[in-house]
Amino acid sequence: MRLSLSSILLFCFCIASAQKVSSPSNKISAEFKLAGNGTPTYSVTFKNKPVINASNLGFTLKDLPAFDNGFTITGTSNKTVNESWRPVLGEVSVIRNNYNELTINLQQNQTGRLLNIIFRVFDEGVAFRYEFPKQPNLNYFIVSEEKTQFNLTGDHKAFWIPADFDSQEYVYSETNLSQADNDKLNLNNGISTKSIPQRFAVQSPLMMKSKDGLYINIFEAATINYPVMHLKLDPAKFTLTSLLAPNAVGDLAYLQAPAHTPWRTVMVSDDARDIVAQKMVLNLNEPSKIDDTSWIKPMKYVGIWWEMHVSKSTWDYSGTQEASQSKFSGRKPHGATTENTMRYIDFAKKHGFDGVLVEGWNTGWEDWFGNWKEEVFDFTSPYPDFDIKAISNYAKKQGVKMIMHHETSGSVANYERRMDRAYKVMQQFGYPAVKTGYVGRIIPRGEFHDGQAMVNHFNYVPQRAAEYKIMVNSHESSRPTGVHRTWPNYIAAEAARGNEFNGWSSGNPPAHETILPFTRLLGGPMDYTPGIFEIKMNIYDPAKTEQVHTTLAKQLALYVTLYSPLQMAADLPENYEKYPDAFQFIKDVAADWDDTKVLEAEPGDYLTIARKEKGKENWFLGAITDENVRQATVSLDFLTPGKKYKAVIYQDGKNAHWEKNPKSYEIKTQTVTSKSKLKLNLAAGGGTAISFMPVN
Amino acid sequence: MRLSLSSILLFCFCIASAQKVSSPSNKISAEFKLAGNGTPTYSVTFKNKPVINASNLGFTLKDLPAFDNGFTITGTSNKTVNESWRPVLGEVSVIRNNYNELTINLQQNQTGRLLNIIFRVFDEGVAFRYEFPKQPNLNYFIVSEEKTQFNLTGDHKAFWIPADFDSQEYVYSETNLSQADNDKLNLNNGISTKSIPQRFAVQSPLMMKSKDGLYINIFEAATINYPVMHLKLDPAKFTLTSLLAPNAVGDLAYLQAPAHTPWRTVMVSDDARDIVAQKMVLNLNEPSKIDDTSWIKPMKYVGIWWEMHVSKSTWDYSGTQEASQSKFSGRKPHGATTENTMRYIDFAKKHGFDGVLVEGWNTGWEDWFGNWKEEVFDFTSPYPDFDIKAISNYAKKQGVKMIMHHETSGSVANYERRMDRAYKVMQQFGYPAVKTGYVGRIIPRGEFHDGQAMVNHFNYVPQRAAEYKIMVNSHESSRPTGVHRTWPNYIAAEAARGNEFNGWSSGNPPAHETILPFTRLLGGPMDYTPGIFEIKMNIYDPAKTEQVHTTLAKQLALYVTLYSPLQMAADLPENYEKYPDAFQFIKDVAADWDDTKVLEAEPGDYLTIARKEKGKENWFLGAITDENVRQATVSLDFLTPGKKYKAVIYQDGKNAHWEKNPKSYEIKTQTVTSKSKLKLNLAAGGGTAISFMPVN
Repeated sequence: MRLSLSSILLFCFCIASAQKVSSPSNKISAEFKLAGNGTPTYSVTFKNKPVINASNLGFTLKDLPAFDNGFTITGTSNKTVNESWRPVLGEVSVIRNNYNELTINLQQNQTGRLLNIIFRVFDEGVAFRYEFPKQPNLNYFIVSEEKTQFNLTGDHKAFWIPADFDSQEYVYSETNLSQADNDKLNLNNGISTKSIPQRFAVQSPLMMKSKDGLYINIFEAATINYPVMHLKLDPAKFTLTSLLAPNAVGDLAYLQAPAHTPWRTVMVSDDARDIVAQKMVLNLNEPSKIDDTSWIKPMKYVGIWWEMHVSKSTWDYSGTQEASQSKFSGRKPHGATTENTMRYIDFAKKHGFDGVLVEGWNTGWEDWFGNWKEEVFDFTSPYPDFDIKAISNYAKKQGVKMIMHHETSGSVANYERRMDRAYKVMQQFGYPAVKTGYVGRIIPRGEFHDGQAMVNHFNYVPQRAAEYKIMVNSHESSRPTGVHRTWPNYIAAEAARGNEFNGWSSGNPPAHETILPFTRLLGGPMDYTPGIFEIKMNIYDPAKTEQVHTTLAKQLALYVTLYSPLQMAADLPENYEKYPDAFQFIKDVAADWDDTKVLEAEPGDYLTIARKEKGKENWFLGAITDENVRQATVSLDFLTPGKKYKAVIYQDGKNAHWEKNPKSYEIKTQTVTSKSKLKLNLAAGGGTAISFMPVN
Repeated sequence: MRLSLSSILLFCFCIASAQKVSSPSNKISAEFKLAGNGTPTYSVTFKNKPVINASNLGFTLKDLPAFDNGFTITGTSNKTVNESWRPVLGEVSVIRNNYNELTINLQQNQTGRLLNIIFRVFDEGVAFRYEFPKQPNLNYFIVSEEKTQFNLTGDHKAFWIPADFDSQEYVYSETNLSQADNDKLNLNNGISTKSIPQRFAVQSPLMMKSKDGLYINIFEAATINYPVMHLKLDPAKFTLTSLLAPNAVGDLAYLQAPAHTPWRTVMVSDDARDIVAQKMVLNLNEPSKIDDTSWIKPMKYVGIWWEMHVSKSTWDYSGTQEASQSKFSGRKPHGATTENTMRYIDFAKKHGFDGVLVEGWNTGWEDWFGNWKEEVFDFTSPYPDFDIKAISNYAKKQGVKMIMHHETSGSVANYERRMDRAYKVMQQFGYPAVKTGYVGRIIPRGEFHDGQAMVNHFNYVPQRAAEYKIMVNSHESSRPTGVHRTWPNYIAAEAARGNEFNGWSSGNPPAHETILPFTRLLGGPMDYTPGIFEIKMNIYDPAKTEQVHTTLAKQLALYVTLYSPLQMAADLPENYEKYPDAFQFIKDVAADWDDTKVLEAEPGDYLTIARKEKGKENWFLGAITDENVRQATVSLDFLTPGKKYKAVIYQDGKNAHWEKNPKSYEIKTQTVTSKSKLKLNLAAGGGTAISFMPVN
């Protein structure tokens, strides 16, 4: 009798130890459960199939009792959100934010400390984060380990790059999880600063495909005041565990309650297109903190940049610094001269580009790299052959915007102490955008690109820049996690292996660009710098053997498949002038969109996307393939019914091939409607780009 | 025959392995010698008595062969300098710079690397530094160990504080070297951030006295882009070895040839007064880099500061933050209100002070300390009860200068990124000076106050401030090494145990101020904040037992004995108004000088200094003693012959005693000439202050 009474009491006073929340469509569910020892766990299902088996949650805190067991649920609450909002720049003009939320309030019995875990389940996947409410027993604390696990259900195929606290500029490996082994990688890959923490560990976003055809992606959103999440892998059990970049003294994150972690996300679908089209990462970020966003604009640009990558000119005034250092002998001309800049301004004006980027304009490049040097650039002193005032006046006269370049060589300390001065110079000369760079080991020494302090820096730059109405395009930063919703002047980032690697390294294999939209681009726009027409690099130096690993037509398609409101036409003016018909697509294509349709997608294989230009009736389609030839038929039912469009189709030539015959392309024109279907013929490593302009 | 020929050849091709250089007076000599294995060594003598026995020189470099042996002398050169220069602010109006220089050019046989060692021998002591010339085999390098030794000749008496990479705010111990043991220290001493690296290690400047009466001081000058030098001690052999503060990853210094270290100095004399009067540290620094120094001015000031130390008011708006946290209960009024500031401005105007410092004027103080928090202050946001505009206008109207306060709580990263904004606010509101503070562990995390990066910061602040014509007074910085010659707007620093410790800790023993001029003050002016009249702290809180460890008269004498062109009258206005006759000395005393005479000196015992006011005929004398009563007769032969002066003598009362009867003082006036002699009667822990004004 006593026993059963106490059972009843227990039942009455406790909240059910399992709590479930499902997506609006009911396809995806997340379940929270306290394990026997009060360890928080969760699991995820898709159409009732397990996606994440019961996985632990919690933390180790420095100098404090463990924070991953001994919990009781003290409360739960539910919420449903269904709203929409308009991004300043984007792939669509309106974004629907629709999820069911479950909050679990936990208390640790022994310490009285409180921890909330919030789940948001979208039709695209599950997100959760930890919240540390304001409480008497936890104020300042240091995270020594985040124990978040993702117990996968099998040996999925994965598109992975190694965990690296300093770089994401890797080629993706496509293997089963059990074969993801950093010791097997060829690290002679052109990446200058590598910090791979352990053998079995990969980066997020991690794209996977299960044997039964589920597309699963592990990532995070709104990484603010917290290190980047990498993933430790147990290659036998297929368990991933959060692996955070430490700081100089080995701590992971300094927090003060109230605080919360970034969102951990598990996207899942049986249709790969849903992953590419997801908006949950953006939805998990806070709305814009900039009130007047009228100065934030999409931008197509050219620039003095690829010249240095192909060894035509140099960053430095002395004429020694170009990208292929190892093969270089003798002096070459400095790229960023007043004369050359004016040539680019003229070219931009003539062909309707918004901006001109100039790298190597400022003093310091003679000895900028590889020595962990703190004071390289001051960001305000032009080289003597770069007349910033004359250039600025000329650009204004021509109606072209200048894009500033701030390479920090990793010395964030130096950049931060000079930031106001640098932005003031930009303001003075009317530069509306800056490309930042972080090549090299970070200073403050001991910090990694992906640690909490640097995450804070990369988020701080757009905040500071916003005060000067400056747009930011960061290179070698930690990878975006949708924070550009909150700071929409953070218009693009690199943070993955960009087109530049094709100029002077083993390059990017043909599948590369079919994977990026399933990984890096989930967090935000990428300044990939497409548009290389002179595919082979030996035209500047006969000894150069590198080449771009796509056809010319695929370079065009990338303007559609790789979303960015900041898009470079990366090749040299003289090269574009050789191919004016193909160049027309780059001139026509938009960079900001009302709508986006992912027509076909398979990671590592192919991707076809159509997008409608913001505020216009023009549509653009990009289709790309990996190293394999591909034929497909796409329905044009995305076009406005009843309207006629002139379709200009830029496709691979009959015998085109990314390696053997990359520059073969053909352009044909036809009239189409929403009822039309088009046959696409993609060469090995090829692509198709199409513009659809309404016929009046 | 062959043997003797080769001997001759050897003799002809080699430079003598021993090289000597002496001071202009010939009293002091330094000898350089290559030891058997090509190890550079040096020794120092004074009047032919050994001061430093043969001691090793050299480095360990990271990932490179050792750089401390295997050298050959490839050349030597000598130079004599005898010049004079005028400091912007100083103890004398003209400084003589007179030394003999010896340069030793070394080459390491195995590596071909070059190293120069430069000796400068002044009549005050020996200085030497390492120079790394531009060379093919050494460009970027990292110092892992500096092996500079100081082999002392015996178990000297030493005035030492423990090596600590984060603080110099210690009470001095007076023991023989063999007894200098950090494990025996009482570390319950009020210092918030301590980093004592090892048991047997002391700070420089290290003041010593040998059994045969030589005063020997080991220090450094011109510490720029290099860590602070502490000293490892071998307590059995009396050998000191350079101990440099490491950075976050354990490296000591990042250098690029051409480069040089700071000067290592060995001052020596048989007259203690010569140590106090030395100018070699200044002479070893570079001339002013500021062309127009007209805005750099001496400053006597009052401020809202001691209020918080004695628990009358608080730094924070919420009313909880004052210095005696442990004893505090309940709210107290915020100190930095508009009304209170105007009261200080009125007081400053009435009594002829140049400036008013206000601490706690800006938001952040509620949670500013002890949590290694990066973003505490923004340096630009006043509390709502501090009307910066009204205060600034009022101060201008009253002809009083405002002194800004920038407490960083150790977050240098945060300060540097906001520096321009902070100085711009100062400029906007007409603040000509800033007091900076670095209480707490440094951020970037892993750095120490005394590491290379922070040394660079402390030197960077006056450079940046100079662009805004702002003078700098740094607290909790690394200790000065004469760099204020180069950046004369670096008018003062704390960097030792100041008067404030008497307010809320075990305090400073009566001998403390007799040691500082032999140690901390050798590097530059100290903002000691003398002038406390209400010696006992229980007048604000009956429970407070702390007190200043001097008599009131000694507080007056400190304005002369502790040189600073920035001198605070630290006590509260209401306290000065209780003692208007004694306060007159603080009102009269100068802060910038034409001439200085050290009349009597014995470290740890007593000090008497007379100084002539810059540009005037007024002289001021300060005499202080330790815990012992002292009587002395001083000749006034420093006064201009033939002139009559009215001497106002502020001395301890008959029964004055620093502990039992500290506020007893008497003031007498008499007419004197350069032929007069004065009897000084100093109580235990007492002092005498005298003003000499010419009688017309």
